[in-house]
Amino acid sequence: MKIAVLGGDGFVGWPTSLHLSDQGHEVHILDNLSRRWIDTELGVQSLTPMDSIQERTRIWHQETGRRIRFHLLDLAKDYERLKQWLLEIRPDAVIHFAEQRAAPYSMKTDRHKVYTVDNNVSATHNLLSALVETEIDAHLIHLGTMGVYGYSTVGAAIPEGYLPVGIETIGGETVEQEILYPTRPGSIYHMTKSLDQILFQFYAQNDGLRITDLHQGIVWGTHTEQTRRHVQLVNRFDYDGDYGTVLNRFLIQAAIGYPLTVHGTGGQTRAFIHIQDSVRCIELALNDGPKRGDRVKIFNQMTETHRVRDLANLVSELTGAKVAWLPNPRKEAAENELVVKNDQFLALGLDPITLRAGLLEEVVDVAKKYAYRVDRSRIPCVSAWTREIAQRVERDPEHRGLKSA
Amino acid sequence: MKIAVLGGDGFVGWPTSLHLSDQGHEVHILDNLSRRWIDTELGVQSLTPMDSIQERTRIWHQETGRRIRFHLLDLAKDYERLKQWLLEIRPDAVIHFAEQRAAPYSMKTDRHKVYTVDNNVSATHNLLSALVETEIDAHLIHLGTMGVYGYSTVGAAIPEGYLPVGIETIGGETVEQEILYPTRPGSIYHMTKSLDQILFQFYAQNDGLRITDLHQGIVWGTHTEQTRRHVQLVNRFDYDGDYGTVLNRFLIQAAIGYPLTVHGTGGQTRAFIHIQDSVRCIELALNDGPKRGDRVKIFNQMTETHRVRDLANLVSELTGAKVAWLPNPRKEAAENELVVKNDQFLALGLDPITLRAGLLEEVVDVAKKYAYRVDRSRIPCVSAWTREIAQRVERDPEHRGLKSA
Ligand SMILES: NC(=O)c1ccc[n+]([C@@H]2O[C@H](COP(=O)([O-])OP(=O)(O)OC[C@H]3O[C@@H](n4cnc5c(N)ncnc54)[C@H](O)[C@@H]3O)[C@@H](O)[C@H]2O)c1
Ligand SMILES: NC(=O)c1ccc[n+]([C@@H]2O[C@H](COP(=O)([O-])OP(=O)(O)OC[C@H]3O[C@@H](n4cnc5c(N)ncnc54)[C@H](O)[C@@H]3O)[C@@H](O)[C@H]2O)c1
Repeated sequence: MKIAVLGGDGFVGWPTSLHLSDQGHEVHILDNLSRRWIDTELGVQSLTPMDSIQERTRIWHQETGRRIRFHLLDLAKDYERLKQWLLEIRPDAVIHFAEQRAAPYSMKTDRHKVYTVDNNVSATHNLLSALVETEIDAHLIHLGTMGVYGYSTVGAAIPEGYLPVGIETIGGETVEQEILYPTRPGSIYHMTKSLDQILFQFYAQNDGLRITDLHQGIVWGTHTEQTRRHVQLVNRFDYDGDYGTVLNRFLIQAAIGYPLTVHGTGGQTRAFIHIQDSVRCIELALNDGPKRGDRVKIFNQMTETHRVRDLANLVSELTGAKVAWLPNPRKEAAENELVVKNDQFLALGLDPITLRAGLLEEVVDVAKKYAYRVDRSRIPCVSAWTREIAQRVERDPEHRGLKSA
Repeated sequence: MKIAVLGGDGFVGWPTSLHLSDQGHEVHILDNLSRRWIDTELGVQSLTPMDSIQERTRIWHQETGRRIRFHLLDLAKDYERLKQWLLEIRPDAVIHFAEQRAAPYSMKTDRHKVYTVDNNVSATHNLLSALVETEIDAHLIHLGTMGVYGYSTVGAAIPEGYLPVGIETIGGETVEQEILYPTRPGSIYHMTKSLDQILFQFYAQNDGLRITDLHQGIVWGTHTEQTRRHVQLVNRFDYDGDYGTVLNRFLIQAAIGYPLTVHGTGGQTRAFIHIQDSVRCIELALNDGPKRGDRVKIFNQMTETHRVRDLANLVSELTGAKVAWLPNPRKEAAENELVVKNDQFLALGLDPITLRAGLLEEVVDVAKKYAYRVDRSRIPCVSAWTREIAQRVERDPEHRGLKSA
């Protein structure tokens, strides 16, 4: 298959590209490298030394004989060139990772809010419109998040995308209808994924586009089978307060002797998936696309759920790290239950990698190897969801202690 | 009150500005005049000769002694200047009309789709973000549409924004929750209003913004009490295939001896409201805003529903006009029932103006007065929802006949 990977220079996009290339697919990466620019803006860098995308694809070719092409393009801004590129490649599938993906970054300042909305909505919509216009009948796979449900979960088991509801008609009978599971996103970033859902629904219905939306949990781990093959194929690995995600951050914090930063009570339950399973799920979804005229296919892409404080305790036991209890910069319920259905991937043959000590240790080892690259002052999360929350966070003694440490 | 009217140069924005100014409010119009540019792009013009906004506000001052200020600004692009402007004015209320509002225009070409999404989403989101950032606690009133429900109505009575659903929790009990009534918009334009709803939900929840979303029916008529006062205060009046809306188009077609263009079976039921009631509803909503922390208040702003073919027959009887049956360029159900609840406005004292012969005739009279300005070749609707529909429309003999007439 010819596969276009949009955002293929990123944390999930890069190992996905390698995985699919390894299987013999012809992989074309499109990326505007904005994520690298954001590193520069924030004054942070991936914990792992990450070469340029051109160099990484050169090494991949050297090691495997396979080519991955790279095209520099802003999906949100270069609509005409996007169409040209699609017409040149004529992909059978398009995997769309190309969005600003950090909730804290999206809440930093109003400039970051505006950037996240404009970038993500235009990127997704440009792609949809370009597929219709070029008449390329590719299977579109998008990476979404279960975080879109946010406040609306009320302790229900999150189904795969749809909710049956009974609607009373004028005549008085009740008609069963399946609607998009209602969303109540809790950050600007999550909100853009909720907007994406509406875009997908429309283009599937009006234009018959074939779309799969993968509602992914928090990805942890760093290596996949392919990234292990050469030191320069290493994946990006974020530890900072904006892009670092919870479990990976705990593992890095443990590796460098920094307290594990738990926000609030740590009672938030989140869904997780290992990076190796993430790329495997994408492969499975690729081979099981909807037909023209079908509604959007929605999968929950996760393998297990955990409470944040349980993870902190687990990592603490494994490594001896201390736990730091910090005020929560997010506006969310202090404690929540979370049960997520993932029957579809299980039915397709996914054999979940769960939190095993071995894999956790691999992450800690990678982090130790590159510990000298950590800028400890970039670890605290400084974005806050509202002005009042920002003030509360700033007044907290432990937060101050960590910031000045 | 100090009231900012965004999009105040438009069809509903202009009479709203006059109405509120007449009541003694301090009105500030913001508009990028994009709608005038679109007239130029399409090579059409308002049936009524419409002066520049500067000239119109000058006449209003001359006639009434009241000032309406005008500020040229692109809400979607000039975010920093938007904040400055808000800080200068410090409005008590903001009424947001400033979006691309024609479904056929939004489906014309891919360029028009991209423009509509980028313009509408950025305009609404910039405004929300700017209100939070400037800490201006204004009541935000937005003009939405009942068209967002599209396919999802299934003959149900459309409630005012929310639907109670029972969600089964992990423990097995059923929790009642009110969710945004599910949308399944049928055009790119309608889709942007569905996106707006998600933006409003987020900003009300996260930042406590006070928001009212008016889901408006199709506006008909042209004059309000204030626009009648001077010939140069006349409202814009669209008759072309993109911006002309169904009832007004029938009345203009009747006035110039053009057949009434019914698309499909004419079995589509739509909701309507007279322009005079539209401005009155906005005034009522203004005085009944939500409190900080409340969810978004959603009103259905319409007074009656009619089937398109019944309207055509009514206008035909009144005027003797012929009816032309054309293929439907939209992708929609041929026939639909529509019952809309509007209890909230009725409770606030709205006394609906319904389709009375007198008012219909006023519109025909205005159209006759300016009939010499009609370019008949711009009357057919040439946008089509998909490529296949476009071909079907083009092959239709009656459509061809009208186009060449
Ligand atoms: N990492 C996670 O834990 C996680 C969890 C759930 C969902 N996801 C989703 O998976 C996707 C990939 O996540 P990631 O962790 O790899 O993110 P990432 O930031 O590492 O990668 C995103 C890539 O997209 C590119 N990009 C952004 N905007 C672009 C534009 N306008 N044009 C072209 N390229 C653009 C960036 O340069 C970057 O290389 C995202 O959509 C994210 O929301 C990630
Ligand atoms: N006319 C109807 O029948 C009807 C029905 C339902 C809902 N509505 C809604 O009511 C609102 C007003 O409708 P209308 O008929 O007056 O439309 P209109 O096109 O006549 O007016 C919209 C105004 O907004 C301005 N505008 C657009 N984008 C802007 C931007 N980025 N920055 C600044 N100004 C911008 C335009 O220049 C125009 O003057 C719209 O949001 C529309 O969706 C209208």
